[in-house]
Amino acid sequence: MKNRILVKDLAGKLGESVVIAGWLNTLRDMKNFGFAIVRDRTGLAQVVVDVAQLEQLKGLQLETVVKVTGVIKEKKSKDPSIKEVEMQAETLEILSPVVDVVPVEISKPELDVQLDTLIDNRVITLRHPKQRAIFRVQAALVHGYRQYMEAQGFTEIFFPILAGAASEGGAEFFKVDYYGREATLSQSAQLYKQITMGVYEGVYGLSYSFRAEKFATSRHLTEFNQFEFELGFVDDMDEVMQHAEDSIRAMMATVERGCADELALLNVTLPPLGEKFPRITLKAALEAYRDEGGVDETSEPDLSPAGERWLSTVWAPKHFGSGFVFVTDYPTVKRPFYAKRDPNDQSNTITFDLIGFGSEIISGGMRINRYDEQVQALKEKGLNPADFEDYLTMHKFGIPPEGGFGMGLQRLTQNVLGLANIKEATIFPRDVQRLRP
Amino acid sequence: MKNRILVKDLAGKLGESVVIAGWLNTLRDMKNFGFAIVRDRTGLAQVVVDVAQLEQLKGLQLETVVKVTGVIKEKKSKDPSIKEVEMQAETLEILSPVVDVVPVEISKPELDVQLDTLIDNRVITLRHPKQRAIFRVQAALVHGYRQYMEAQGFTEIFFPILAGAASEGGAEFFKVDYYGREATLSQSAQLYKQITMGVYEGVYGLSYSFRAEKFATSRHLTEFNQFEFELGFVDDMDEVMQHAEDSIRAMMATVERGCADELALLNVTLPPLGEKFPRITLKAALEAYRDEGGVDETSEPDLSPAGERWLSTVWAPKHFGSGFVFVTDYPTVKRPFYAKRDPNDQSNTITFDLIGFGSEIISGGMRINRYDEQVQALKEKGLNPADFEDYLTMHKFGIPPEGGFGMGLQRLTQNVLGLANIKEATIFPRDVQRLRP
Repeated sequence: MKNRILVKDLAGKLGESVVIAGWLNTLRDMKNFGFAIVRDRTGLAQVVVDVAQLEQLKGLQLETVVKVTGVIKEKKSKDPSIKEVEMQAETLEILSPVVDVVPVEISKPELDVQLDTLIDNRVITLRHPKQRAIFRVQAALVHGYRQYMEAQGFTEIFFPILAGAASEGGAEFFKVDYYGREATLSQSAQLYKQITMGVYEGVYGLSYSFRAEKFATSRHLTEFNQFEFELGFVDDMDEVMQHAEDSIRAMMATVERGCADELALLNVTLPPLGEKFPRITLKAALEAYRDEGGVDETSEPDLSPAGERWLSTVWAPKHFGSGFVFVTDYPTVKRPFYAKRDPNDQSNTITFDLIGFGSEIISGGMRINRYDEQVQALKEKGLNPADFEDYLTMHKFGIPPEGGFGMGLQRLTQNVLGLANIKEATIFPRDVQRLRP
Repeated sequence: MKNRILVKDLAGKLGESVVIAGWLNTLRDMKNFGFAIVRDRTGLAQVVVDVAQLEQLKGLQLETVVKVTGVIKEKKSKDPSIKEVEMQAETLEILSPVVDVVPVEISKPELDVQLDTLIDNRVITLRHPKQRAIFRVQAALVHGYRQYMEAQGFTEIFFPILAGAASEGGAEFFKVDYYGREATLSQSAQLYKQITMGVYEGVYGLSYSFRAEKFATSRHLTEFNQFEFELGFVDDMDEVMQHAEDSIRAMMATVERGCADELALLNVTLPPLGEKFPRITLKAALEAYRDEGGVDETSEPDLSPAGERWLSTVWAPKHFGSGFVFVTDYPTVKRPFYAKRDPNDQSNTITFDLIGFGSEIISGGMRINRYDEQVQALKEKGLNPADFEDYLTMHKFGIPPEGGFGMGLQRLTQNVLGLANIKEATIFPRDVQRLRP
């Protein structure tokens, strides 16, 4: 729009006549004049309108799209949420009207609505500055991740979504009517990460995954995104964990640098990174939780959610000054069929989880890269190798020693921002009940 | 991998003993010694092996993953595809064997296989340098696009894929069994672009689209990606076209800068950009094709593929020194329900196509942003407004004057690289027959 000035830039226009455009956020009738607060993506501007303009605006609903021309003056208002200047309106133009009752109050500091109301009315609720901020932070996380991976010389892959009929235990797959045949929606980019790693050596991307979860919980979505990473010619898992750590550091730096306003608005402080993320075996983590945390889960095959929280918010900050901790050596029964086993103990895998913000945020490890080993591992998992034809074909033709990881985008966003429900961290969430908007 | 040197960096290691790792590309038996060509993602290295090493390698298949330690010397070979240095092997380690007959010859300059063979054997064929290059260029196109959009301050959106039951003419939708209900796969991110534009003002992203096309042609996929863009507070379409032009310029610059080797390998020269992409109405374009191109299509509602080719490869370069041309003013009957009409002529829309590389690469225009106008336009298209509830809800609450565009990633890649079939520009293509690998 010609000559339009963004609200954030008005402070530098003192004394000038400028054009702003945005949504009518609030209107205050002061009898002989009025205050119209106009919102654009960068902030709120106080516009002083005369009686005639006030009357015109009083006939409109909030959220009407307006264009205002006026002179920028020093602000009289004491409201700290408003910029230090205000506009004395000259001309006022309605760009687009509101034709129905707006279902929520966007101008309040907190939306204070139920989750279903929040999502049902995404068209409007996303305009609330705190909602808008969530997905700015989410995009910054993605940018930090990609910048890190590109700087390493790795190749971005665009993973496919439609796949052949389910074989890997079909219960949680969504089925698609594909020209009368059955297709499924991707649950994991694992096959494609490994194929392309066998070409580009280091690959990354943002995949879509679909899970026909039976229940709608605060931690589950039927459609979500994953940061993917796979690296070939790896001597040992340390190299994979280092990329996990360094990508998290890059993401936190990108968010701190680019989203300072959003973090302040959402009252979020990022956890300490420390010199180096500590690394501890699952067995040692369970023992520490028993000895220092006072909870004995040493007979369990994994840490409980409470144990993960303790480890990353109490143990790791206390001993290592870090809010992040790698837990390694998960039992074979708890890891997928492609997880590489410990050559000295087949019941143990060379895998890791990265725990941060109180819960698991990354899961990864070394992968089986030889055909015979993979056939054997499938059989031991009770899976039929004939159902994994593409997977095994890949292993036939020379796959280097390799590892990788996955990290859920919405779960990470939820954890970084401390949101109660993962749907708050999902711009258009889908669950058992929800397919819209 | 500790101490591993990439093949591209060997020239700087003359006289040193280094480690390389990669795939056994070819092996030549010279009686008293041998030449093993080892391929990594950066190139081919000639390794001189002694008789014992030669015998060991002769027992292996090509594509075996090897690790070689040796001294870098000046090259004796005259083959220009090989680096100017070679390695005298000291130790040789098999990292991963090949356990089946490799179905194609990766070491040949051209793969020279049928399209189905190419795709069926993606695990292997993607390793051919020309195949590998295609998806490096594709990633660079995406990076150039994103960098441009971020530099404008626009917000990246991650669009949803699962949606409620189809309403907008259901024939080409894929249907998903969603907990016993019917869901569909997204055909277009249009609704989500417009909702988020109403919040962030400028939005972009890479969407997935699914079309149950009835036929498998050289130009159609059932699953593909689109560059998306939507911008609010737009005075007129020029602003939208300028972003289309500038994003193409950014993409071409990124490819030229980052993929010089790939373009040379694929023998691709990018078309001239010119000072400014010319802009011509559809009517004037049809008349130019008749008057200068000698083909009269002036009674048609659109340019034919041959007409688009002529316009962007003959007319625009000749008159404007550019391989790109904007065609504007498409008839209402040829554009979607959300296309803004010309206020002076309801049979005409304020829309554009960008023609480049011989065919349409971008389609965009101004959008209807008012509720009443959109209800009317749906009715005139013979569509039922009740089937567009989320769409119309958005229009109720103040949507600024706006426009945007979409650009198919695989189609653009096909066009930039001059590939005969769009499946060659798709890493894991899906069509009527194909769902794997």
